[in-house]
Amino acid sequence: MNQLVNPSIVLDNHPQGAATTGNFRIANQPIGELKPGEFLIENTWLSMDPYTRPRLNENTAYVEPIKLGEVIQGETIGKVVESNSPKYQVGDRVFTFSGWQKYCVGNDADFMTYRLPDTELSPTIFLSVAGTPGRAAYFGLNKIAKPKAGETMVVSAASGAVGSVAGQLGKMAGCRVVGIAGSEEKCRYVVDELGFDACVNYKSDNLGEEIEAACPNGVDIYFENVGGRISSLVARHLNEGARVPICGSAALYNKGKDVDASTLSRFYSSLPSAPENRFFLVTEWVNDYASSISWLTAAAESGQLKFRETVTEGLENAPQAFVDLLEGKHFGKQLVRV
Amino acid sequence: MNQLVNPSIVLDNHPQGAATTGNFRIANQPIGELKPGEFLIENTWLSMDPYTRPRLNENTAYVEPIKLGEVIQGETIGKVVESNSPKYQVGDRVFTFSGWQKYCVGNDADFMTYRLPDTELSPTIFLSVAGTPGRAAYFGLNKIAKPKAGETMVVSAASGAVGSVAGQLGKMAGCRVVGIAGSEEKCRYVVDELGFDACVNYKSDNLGEEIEAACPNGVDIYFENVGGRISSLVARHLNEGARVPICGSAALYNKGKDVDASTLSRFYSSLPSAPENRFFLVTEWVNDYASSISWLTAAAESGQLKFRETVTEGLENAPQAFVDLLEGKHFGKQLVRV
Repeated sequence: MNQLVNPSIVLDNHPQGAATTGNFRIANQPIGELKPGEFLIENTWLSMDPYTRPRLNENTAYVEPIKLGEVIQGETIGKVVESNSPKYQVGDRVFTFSGWQKYCVGNDADFMTYRLPDTELSPTIFLSVAGTPGRAAYFGLNKIAKPKAGETMVVSAASGAVGSVAGQLGKMAGCRVVGIAGSEEKCRYVVDELGFDACVNYKSDNLGEEIEAACPNGVDIYFENVGGRISSLVARHLNEGARVPICGSAALYNKGKDVDASTLSRFYSSLPSAPENRFFLVTEWVNDYASSISWLTAAAESGQLKFRETVTEGLENAPQAFVDLLEGKHFGKQLVRV
Repeated sequence: MNQLVNPSIVLDNHPQGAATTGNFRIANQPIGELKPGEFLIENTWLSMDPYTRPRLNENTAYVEPIKLGEVIQGETIGKVVESNSPKYQVGDRVFTFSGWQKYCVGNDADFMTYRLPDTELSPTIFLSVAGTPGRAAYFGLNKIAKPKAGETMVVSAASGAVGSVAGQLGKMAGCRVVGIAGSEEKCRYVVDELGFDACVNYKSDNLGEEIEAACPNGVDIYFENVGGRISSLVARHLNEGARVPICGSAALYNKGKDVDASTLSRFYSSLPSAPENRFFLVTEWVNDYASSISWLTAAAESGQLKFRETVTEGLENAPQAFVDLLEGKHFGKQLVRV
């Protein structure tokens, strides 16, 4: 096993501003002997996530930075190819946090490594609609926003992995749901396929007016994924009693400045409407992971929750997939097939 | 099994200000038939936690409120007495989030339910020094404060379950560690047994002066557990580059006002010294749970980490134990033996 060639993508240098493929390089990370309780996983799918971008900065406040030479971290799906654990057998399909590499060593004491539940859908749903993005939408909406029928809900990054689920959950709760997305094609998808009531293109010259027109009764819930100019425009229409779950601030990540959990929260708290707002991490509800995975899987299987995945082929193309993700070139969840 | 009598402590009415035993009542919660993957746990130990107090309010911003009639939630240790899961056998000792009741149904898909690791110490360490309080200290210090040898670190609630571990970890890192605790007896324990360099009694008339005298080089790290007056006094001495991991604000919980994650953060961010500060939840590092449990268990077993537990006998006395905890009558970790 010491001869195993394990190509991986590591951080070569910190991005200055927008991330480029030149910030990464391919390396060969050693794989040691399996200790008791360990097992070898061959990765089949990598998750590409916007929040990885701030982790590439030299310092960052709310997530741990990835150091130079380290494998880029992230969620993965793979299959067990060797096992020194009674809990995992060769052939098992597992979720883990391997990062961007071909192989990794799993440990059966890790809380967040698990055998994939059976599903008739692709196992990639455990990185998308029934994975962290789906849970972010599910918890942000059910635990923070608590939508009521008849309310107006705005969702930014509406065609993305989180926004698409958040908006559909808002529709199930009886809200008027307005998406914000980055192209006409995405807006059509959000309305025609996901069933949102409206969607505005944030590249429009009249974004402020279009948001206003789409929300004649103001905004009761703003599911915040982006920050920046879009937030300022939506904020003008927040009603008294509005709730703003802050899931992320993707529009700020590539600017190279540090983004911390309190930046957007301070902005919302300073508004005259003073919406209830807070930044959240899905791990706050780790006690509800099992039930949320069951619910989201069933909703995806029944077709009640629609989702889309963008697949890039090849581990070596992960940096390009990541750069494209930050530039909004993807649709739904961005994945890499190893 | 439907005949099983399952006494539990439920929320009878919301506390107005300080919690009293009158806010709780005993009920009998039904236990249903075990479904596949489920198992019946008989609880042996309940964890009493200060952060349960804000959850008893009608509304609360950062943790979910417990509703009237609901079992008071919390971590527990118990033994499996019936199993419909291949993963758990009768007799297994498990950690779970049962809440304050005699029995509960576990589910083998729950991420946060686990079979207790072997230890020569009492299994209660998985509710104290090697449990959530120990991890809060471990992550708050290692992930946020990042202590350097020679720095001065102040820890409030220093004799408590979190503070006692935080301070000892600070000593291991080579810091001058100053505790703040609520009695002379606690201060003696903190210095003589836990090995802090100094400890001041917050009930002293000269608290400000005593903090200043104990920190002649100012404060580089303030491990924040309490909020309120103590925070204001410590804040005066924060050096440039100081870090403030905000673990909790126990001094505010019993005031009945809502405490949210950003209250203390806003205070620290407004200071001229602008220390790096943030509120954290241990679940942010759920990927590191397994390794932190191993490390803390080994450190407790070797005697490197000292800890103390206060035990109240009987489920029916859980409300009194909780009220006493909020009033600081305990030493170390407050537990209830069911």
